[in-house]
Amino acid sequence: MKAVILAAGLGRRMQSEEPKPLLPLFGMPIIEHTIRKLKGIDIIVVYHDERIKKYIEKKFPDVKLIYNPEPDRENGWSLYLAKDFVNEDFLLLMADHYYGEEFFQFKKRRNTTVFVSKHCRDAEEATKVKVDGKKVVNIGKKLRKYDYFDTGFFYCKKDVFKYAEKLAEKGKMKLAEIMKELAKEGKLEYEVVNASWTDIDTKKELKYAEELVKKSLIKEGDGIISKNVNRKISMRITKYLLKFGFLTPNVLTVISFLIGIFSSALFMLKSFIFAGLMAQFCSILDGCDGEIARLKNLKSKFGGILDAYLDRIADFLIIFGIFLAYGIDTISSIAFLIALLGCIMPSYIYHLSGIRSDLFGRDVRLFIVFIGGILATLNKEFLLYTLLFIGIYMNVGAISFLLQARKKG
Amino acid sequence: MKAVILAAGLGRRMQSEEPKPLLPLFGMPIIEHTIRKLKGIDIIVVYHDERIKKYIEKKFPDVKLIYNPEPDRENGWSLYLAKDFVNEDFLLLMADHYYGEEFFQFKKRRNTTVFVSKHCRDAEEATKVKVDGKKVVNIGKKLRKYDYFDTGFFYCKKDVFKYAEKLAEKGKMKLAEIMKELAKEGKLEYEVVNASWTDIDTKKELKYAEELVKKSLIKEGDGIISKNVNRKISMRITKYLLKFGFLTPNVLTVISFLIGIFSSALFMLKSFIFAGLMAQFCSILDGCDGEIARLKNLKSKFGGILDAYLDRIADFLIIFGIFLAYGIDTISSIAFLIALLGCIMPSYIYHLSGIRSDLFGRDVRLFIVFIGGILATLNKEFLLYTLLFIGIYMNVGAISFLLQARKKG
Repeated sequence: MKAVILAAGLGRRMQSEEPKPLLPLFGMPIIEHTIRKLKGIDIIVVYHDERIKKYIEKKFPDVKLIYNPEPDRENGWSLYLAKDFVNEDFLLLMADHYYGEEFFQFKKRRNTTVFVSKHCRDAEEATKVKVDGKKVVNIGKKLRKYDYFDTGFFYCKKDVFKYAEKLAEKGKMKLAEIMKELAKEGKLEYEVVNASWTDIDTKKELKYAEELVKKSLIKEGDGIISKNVNRKISMRITKYLLKFGFLTPNVLTVISFLIGIFSSALFMLKSFIFAGLMAQFCSILDGCDGEIARLKNLKSKFGGILDAYLDRIADFLIIFGIFLAYGIDTISSIAFLIALLGCIMPSYIYHLSGIRSDLFGRDVRLFIVFIGGILATLNKEFLLYTLLFIGIYMNVGAISFLLQARKKG
Repeated sequence: MKAVILAAGLGRRMQSEEPKPLLPLFGMPIIEHTIRKLKGIDIIVVYHDERIKKYIEKKFPDVKLIYNPEPDRENGWSLYLAKDFVNEDFLLLMADHYYGEEFFQFKKRRNTTVFVSKHCRDAEEATKVKVDGKKVVNIGKKLRKYDYFDTGFFYCKKDVFKYAEKLAEKGKMKLAEIMKELAKEGKLEYEVVNASWTDIDTKKELKYAEELVKKSLIKEGDGIISKNVNRKISMRITKYLLKFGFLTPNVLTVISFLIGIFSSALFMLKSFIFAGLMAQFCSILDGCDGEIARLKNLKSKFGGILDAYLDRIADFLIIFGIFLAYGIDTISSIAFLIALLGCIMPSYIYHLSGIRSDLFGRDVRLFIVFIGGILATLNKEFLLYTLLFIGIYMNVGAISFLLQARKKG
C-alpha cells in the first residue's frame, strides 16, 4: 500500500509566515506526525512550498516528493499529479490535519472509502457527507442535509484517478468534487471513526490539536502521581527533547535509569533532599521514553522490557541507598527486605494476572521516596520509615492484586 | 455433552483380585484419571462389580451409575444399557484405558468419530481401523489390512443406539460390531490423535501407563535440576499425597512456602546443613502442587499466580536468612542486594518476554543454596559466596534473556 499526502495548500487562514504543514504541533511539524504514523508504507507528498521539500528531503529521504506549481488549482489537482506514481490502493491524507492512531489500520478494502466522524470542530468549514446504507450519496461543503463530517482521510482505489481525469479539463478541482463523482456512481463507501482528529486551519485549531496529542500520550494504567503530576512535566520535557534525533526511547530509558542510580548515590552521600528530588526526576523522565516512542512511532516490545527491567533495578538501588544511609542493622535490614519486595511485587503480579491499580505503581513509590528524602533532612529516622512505608504499603497492594486474581478464579 | 464410561468388563488377563478400573495407576484408580479429565461433563458409568459402584458413589456422587448384570454380553451391551440416559452427543470411553490430556477436547462434531492412533502396545489384541478418505470403512480385531488402531475413545451421535438395537437381539455384542454397522453405512469418521494412550489389560501395560502419567507431569520449561533430580522425588511424594483429598494444589503451595521460611529460619539459627536441605526440600515440594493440579485436573490461573508469588517471597526470605547468618556489613549487603535481584529477575523477564532457559530457574537457585548450606558448615565465608554466586549467575541469566528479547525485536 502507498499513501499520498496533500501538502500544497496555501493555508491563508493561519496567517503565519511558515507553510502550514511545517508548523510545530507539540514540538513536531504537523506533517511529521502523519508521516511517522505511516511507518512501513511508501509515502508520496505533493507540495508547493520549497521549505516543505527541504524539510522532508532532509528528514525522510525515502518519501517521494511531487511538485505542484499551481496550488490555486485546489487539492483535487494535487491528487491528480500523483497519478503516475501510484499503481495500487492507497491512503489519501491531508498534510494539515491531525489524525489519531486509530485511523492507521492499513487494511485492504473493496471500495474507495472516506473516513467520517460524527463530530467536528468547525462545522461551517467542514466537508459534509450524506450516506445511504453502506454508500455515500453526496459529499461537499455546502450540503444542507448530512450525516457525518469528512475527516480528510481516505482509502482510495486506483480508479479515483479516472474520475479526476474527467474533471481535470476544468482547470481546477477540489477533492470533494472528485469524491462526489464516485458517490454518484455508488463507488464511495464510508467508515465512521471514533477517533480524535482535526483539520488545522487556525491557531485555535492548532491549540486544539495539541490537546489531542497530549491526550494520546496518557497511558492506560498511569498511576495517580503520574497522571496528576509527572505527565504534566514529562510532556513539556518530551516536547523539548523531540528535536534531538539521537534521543531514542531506549536512550531515554537508560538516562532515566542513570538518574535513578544518581539518586541512590546521593542517598549514600546523605544528600537527602537532592536524592529525593533525583528520585522524583527519575520518575518523571520515566514517562518521556514512552511519550517519545509514541510520538515518533518507535514503540517496541524490547523497549518495554528494557524499561521495566531497568526500572526495577533503579528502584532496588534507590532503596539500597536509603538502607545504607540509615545504617545497617537488623531492623533496617528487615525494612530493606520488605521495601525491595514492595518494589517488585505489584508489577510482578500485574504481569502474571493482568490486574493493576493506579495506587501501587512506580510513580507512587518514587513519590514516597521524594517525600522521605525531604523529611530525612529533619530526622534521619524518616529513612527507616520510608523503607517501612514503601514495604508495607506496596506489599498490601500486591496482596490486594492477588486477592482480586483469586476472585476472578 | 455427556460421557459414557464402560466399566463392566471382566478383565481376566490382569489376574488381580480387584476390578481392573480400580487398580491404582500412579496412586489413583485407572478410572479416576478419566473421570477427573472429564470435569464439567455429566458422566455415566456402566459397571458390573459392586466395588466400582461403592468407590464412585463415595468419591464422585454426581456420576450416574448403571448396573450391567450380564458382563458376558460384552461392551456393546454395556453401551446399550445407557441408551435411556443419553439424549445428545456423547463421549464414549473405556474404564480400563489411559488417555492423555489431548483427547479431551469436548468439541462438537458432525458424525460419530473414532479416535485412532498410528501406534499401539499390543497389536494383536487391538481393534484395527481401515479408512478411506474421511470415513472408516471397516473396524474389528481381525482385520488383515488396516490403517490405524482404535484407541477406545469415541465421539458418538445418538443414533449409535439405533445400530446397537439391531444387534441387541443376538444376545451379545461388541462395541466394534456396532461401530462396524455405522461404518458400513458411511456414518463413522475418524480422527488421528498424536497423544499418549494405552489399553490396560496386563500388569505390564499398567506399568507402561504409569510411565505415560509420569511423562505428562513433566512441565515444559522445567529446569535442569528439576528435570534430573527434583521430579524424580516429587513424583513419588505426589503419588503418596494423592490419597489425601484435603491436599489441594494451593495447600501444597503454602506448605512448600512454609518449608522455605523454615529454611530461612534455620540459616538464621546457623544450622546450615539443615537449612540447605530444607531449601532443597522446598524446591522439590514446589513441583508437587503442579503435579497434583494436573493429575486431579485442578489447574487454575490463581494457583499459578499464588505459586509464583510465594516462591519469590520464600526465595527472598532464604536469601535474607543467609545474609543475617553471614553477618551484616557493606559487602554482604551488596551481595544480598544482587542475590535478591537474581531471585526475581529471570522470572520477571520471562513473564515480560516469554524467554526462558532451564539454567536460571528456581530449581537451580535453591540447589545452589543447598550446596552453599553444606559448604558453610566448613567455612562461614561460603554464605557470602553463595549470595554472590546466586547474584552474579542469575543476573547474567536475566541479562541474557534481555539480549535475546532484543534480538527478537
